[in-house]
Amino acid sequence: MADTTQNEFNPSYQYPSSDKLYITGSRSDIRVGMREISLSDTQHADGTATPNAPLRLYDTSGPYTDQHIDVAVTGGLAGIRTAWIEEREDTEFTDRRPVRQKRIQAKEGQFKGDIVTRKAKPGRNVSQLWYARQGIITPEMEFVAIRENLGLSDQEIQSAVAEQHPGQPYGARIPEIITPEFVRSEVAAGRAVIPANINHPEAEPMIIGRNFRVKVNANIGNSAVSSSISDEVEKMVWATRWGADTIMDLSTGKNIHETREWIMRNSPVPVGTVPLYQALEKVGGIAENLTWEVYRDTLIEQAEQGVDYFTIHAGVRLAYIPMTANRLTGIVSRGGSIMAKWCLAHHKENFLYTHFEEICEIMKAYDICFSLGDGLRPGSIADANDEAQFAELRTLGELTKIAWEHDVQTFIEGPGHVPMHLIERNMQEQLTHCHEAPFYTLGPLTTDIAPAYDHITSGIGAALIGWYGCAMLCYVTPKEHLGLPNKEDVKQGLIAYKIAAHAADLAKGHPAAQLHDNAMSAARFEFRWEDQFNLALDPETARRYHDETMPREGHKVAHFCSMCGPKFCSMKLSHDIRNREAGMEEMSEKFREEGSQLYVDAVSS
Amino acid sequence: MADTTQNEFNPSYQYPSSDKLYITGSRSDIRVGMREISLSDTQHADGTATPNAPLRLYDTSGPYTDQHIDVAVTGGLAGIRTAWIEEREDTEFTDRRPVRQKRIQAKEGQFKGDIVTRKAKPGRNVSQLWYARQGIITPEMEFVAIRENLGLSDQEIQSAVAEQHPGQPYGARIPEIITPEFVRSEVAAGRAVIPANINHPEAEPMIIGRNFRVKVNANIGNSAVSSSISDEVEKMVWATRWGADTIMDLSTGKNIHETREWIMRNSPVPVGTVPLYQALEKVGGIAENLTWEVYRDTLIEQAEQGVDYFTIHAGVRLAYIPMTANRLTGIVSRGGSIMAKWCLAHHKENFLYTHFEEICEIMKAYDICFSLGDGLRPGSIADANDEAQFAELRTLGELTKIAWEHDVQTFIEGPGHVPMHLIERNMQEQLTHCHEAPFYTLGPLTTDIAPAYDHITSGIGAALIGWYGCAMLCYVTPKEHLGLPNKEDVKQGLIAYKIAAHAADLAKGHPAAQLHDNAMSAARFEFRWEDQFNLALDPETARRYHDETMPREGHKVAHFCSMCGPKFCSMKLSHDIRNREAGMEEMSEKFREEGSQLYVDAVSS
Repeated sequence: MADTTQNEFNPSYQYPSSDKLYITGSRSDIRVGMREISLSDTQHADGTATPNAPLRLYDTSGPYTDQHIDVAVTGGLAGIRTAWIEEREDTEFTDRRPVRQKRIQAKEGQFKGDIVTRKAKPGRNVSQLWYARQGIITPEMEFVAIRENLGLSDQEIQSAVAEQHPGQPYGARIPEIITPEFVRSEVAAGRAVIPANINHPEAEPMIIGRNFRVKVNANIGNSAVSSSISDEVEKMVWATRWGADTIMDLSTGKNIHETREWIMRNSPVPVGTVPLYQALEKVGGIAENLTWEVYRDTLIEQAEQGVDYFTIHAGVRLAYIPMTANRLTGIVSRGGSIMAKWCLAHHKENFLYTHFEEICEIMKAYDICFSLGDGLRPGSIADANDEAQFAELRTLGELTKIAWEHDVQTFIEGPGHVPMHLIERNMQEQLTHCHEAPFYTLGPLTTDIAPAYDHITSGIGAALIGWYGCAMLCYVTPKEHLGLPNKEDVKQGLIAYKIAAHAADLAKGHPAAQLHDNAMSAARFEFRWEDQFNLALDPETARRYHDETMPREGHKVAHFCSMCGPKFCSMKLSHDIRNREAGMEEMSEKFREEGSQLYVDAVSS
Repeated sequence: MADTTQNEFNPSYQYPSSDKLYITGSRSDIRVGMREISLSDTQHADGTATPNAPLRLYDTSGPYTDQHIDVAVTGGLAGIRTAWIEEREDTEFTDRRPVRQKRIQAKEGQFKGDIVTRKAKPGRNVSQLWYARQGIITPEMEFVAIRENLGLSDQEIQSAVAEQHPGQPYGARIPEIITPEFVRSEVAAGRAVIPANINHPEAEPMIIGRNFRVKVNANIGNSAVSSSISDEVEKMVWATRWGADTIMDLSTGKNIHETREWIMRNSPVPVGTVPLYQALEKVGGIAENLTWEVYRDTLIEQAEQGVDYFTIHAGVRLAYIPMTANRLTGIVSRGGSIMAKWCLAHHKENFLYTHFEEICEIMKAYDICFSLGDGLRPGSIADANDEAQFAELRTLGELTKIAWEHDVQTFIEGPGHVPMHLIERNMQEQLTHCHEAPFYTLGPLTTDIAPAYDHITSGIGAALIGWYGCAMLCYVTPKEHLGLPNKEDVKQGLIAYKIAAHAADLAKGHPAAQLHDNAMSAARFEFRWEDQFNLALDPETARRYHDETMPREGHKVAHFCSMCGPKFCSMKLSHDIRNREAGMEEMSEKFREEGSQLYVDAVSS
């Protein structure tokens, strides 16, 4: 696997045998990018061939995979939402604060793009939730509807649904066709969010909610110990290439502001942060020295840069901290432990809780979503589902109501480490106490015993909670608990989580989700090897694994594979069987006439 | 990951900081090997230290990880069960058939060990099921009981149970303490099997049943296209090192008999095969030319070599074959497709079905378990849970009853490709129709879209079905659908499946299962890095990942890790918080006296 890590990074990339396809909405500037994979023909025994329709996939990779666009990361992406934001006439330009007015300059070079900053006009709320509640269908909502449907026609979706297993949606209500009005109504109800800061017009709108496709977040970010700005930008582009629906920049080291600026200007997906990390840097890393004022300024600084959602640990209340005293692993959330330390040092209630309404005022002036942090999530199987965790969750539900009173979009973070049989309760408690606001969980890890494989321990938990209704899964990489993920770790984490999310979509019965599986299986049964590679979540690795045992080009049209060899190939035998089956009905008629009980016995037994 | 693959193979190996510990049973030759991991002391702030008890793990690796035993694969392992088999006085020596009397000679060298062959005396049944039903507790059963308990005392188990989450066992009835009598009663009821051919005395007894730890099987075996004998022996030893509870030799190439002999004589775990593969080789790979006689001779040949369980596709009845006609991927079981082809060619009922009682006679003369094959399992998400699959399953249930009339141990194979929400029904149908005989499934894969990562797509399904009651999980490697697994693939498959099996044990609430997780989490919270590596399923990779960012030895005693750096380390902060909490109760008393509502409000909200 080392080879991909060592490759020179190129921000532009074409998925094999794929084109970027744009579906245009009700206006010409609503252009929703998708990936379309060309498939080869089905070859018949008689020498004729039938073409296979290309397969469309939901695509998070943005302009980087459009061969007609040459992206220079020093200039940033085009602002596809700029016109929509301007038209609403509810924002105004604002000068960035002095500290940010200087030219953004990173160690690695200079950002050359224009940086403009908006905020809501006085008294205006620019959140998608506010518009939704006014009955306004924004271009962002329409974009999301087209994207969730893969731009398929109603008829195409209906026939896909007829070809797939009905789901078991655990109370989710997923319509066959996602309409812009459905998107609006889900956002209005608080059951879904569209993270879309007015200062991040580069992002392609996407939606997080349990009645939509399950989404995946990738954490990137440097630390004091390692990593650099260009590494992090590279990881962001890389993450979107492998399917990250959002990314979180969790940088804690030097150049925290500059790193984020580069990421924001180049990110086609929403970006989340934990503002507390930067606030802590500002007070020299000493939790006790944090103040509301420092924190508030940090929120505004990041709001101006365009961060789409903030993790805010407002539920870590002073009274809950003693509940962690008998835990095996205490408090494992960085933000949670910082706030707990602050609370104890001052013996005061968490200032994020006491200033929550002031935070709401900031959020709605930029349309930033709350990602209400679970600072007391369990850090081990032993600590799962304890009172500290659920006490905080109930507080997050209380805060959700306050955020909604301010028309601020909100979702809720969840654990962590939870054995399989205790996962469902997490989802139920969250639905009950947080009023169906979307849930966003880290894993959960279903055992503690496999460091270096926690993308798998947690992929199991992620698939389960996604099925139960979790709207977005925060990935875990193989480096969890051990070190900082490199590019290969980011990829491994994302693939495990795309599997988990897709498995969840199938289990929920998401309309047309099974199209991808069916296309792969048809290619398998017909020995269309190239199509199998191209349809795979990781085409290059699939091809490489195949070529390890059967490297020759001729093998890619072989009607068997190296697992079994030609004589033992079940799929080859199946084709022979099918050819015989054509004559079987006739034969079985003949046998019945002759009084054979062969079929009758077997079928009735 | 490439480095481990390229290492020279050494059959002997010591797990880091681990010793082989033997627990002796009621007689001195019942010696159950376990792995015991030494842990370092807990260091306290005042400079004192508390020792941590070593952790015991279930150990499948046999004598290869005993530093006092030097295994030469050319001589084979000692027969730890030989005396037990002899004492029962129900077997006699038998000359192997002429074809096998010649010295076993492989391309790579000559097997130097003695090869003796036994079979039951005329009229005797030597199966563990027969003994169990006579009320006999065999040494094998006692061995299994000690092994499942990890040789822990009743008190140690009870206190471990008090420290873990109660499970959700889906109808499994797992006692806290596994007694030899419980093992006997489960075997007698058919709810568990102990695969233990009298000609494989080298194997350490183990049990497969839903009231015991979930087990994992690893498939190895060469094919016509690739692989060699020494590769396969190496893979077998390698597989047991990474936790394979049984292995299946699925060789289909040349030297099929010799490969198996080498594997049998060196395998510390039970070995399964699909005898049909060798039978097909004998008729030149032409399914139509198979006969009952060729097949029967193959069964006896493999029985004499010591194969512990046979996959037999007796449920692929002629009448079910047309049910596969409209499937997306037809018949994907090799054995199933071969038998289907035979049935159609002759338009006759499957000869494995019509000769089933004769097969039972062979099985009980050697104590071979039936692994009733699911020849019609689904090969794609689309084909999951269809009528072909369940029709065959009902037939397998009917055959189970016949096998049990002959006191032949039996378990049932299951799918395959199944989306998450359709997995539970597989388990329910199997329990209902197969009368609680153990279930043994391949995965199932929960999506079709990730070739090269099917250890993950299927690890999700395996964890789920293990939780629901599946007794043994057949691993899937990253090479599934693409090529023949190499050593690294075997390892990746096993680790994913050990995770799935352990996640299932935790979810079922298996007594003392959480000891391992708790030991890891305690080591994590106390920054005992060396212990974290040693407790990991894959110590070397965990250490390597850590060292990638923090290579220096000093970092292995650091009170933080590279994920966050020292200022942002939640665990470090948690320790600070704990130190403060000691004084918190006092402070909160003081606040309450002063009329502060801080705690009261938060706790009641």
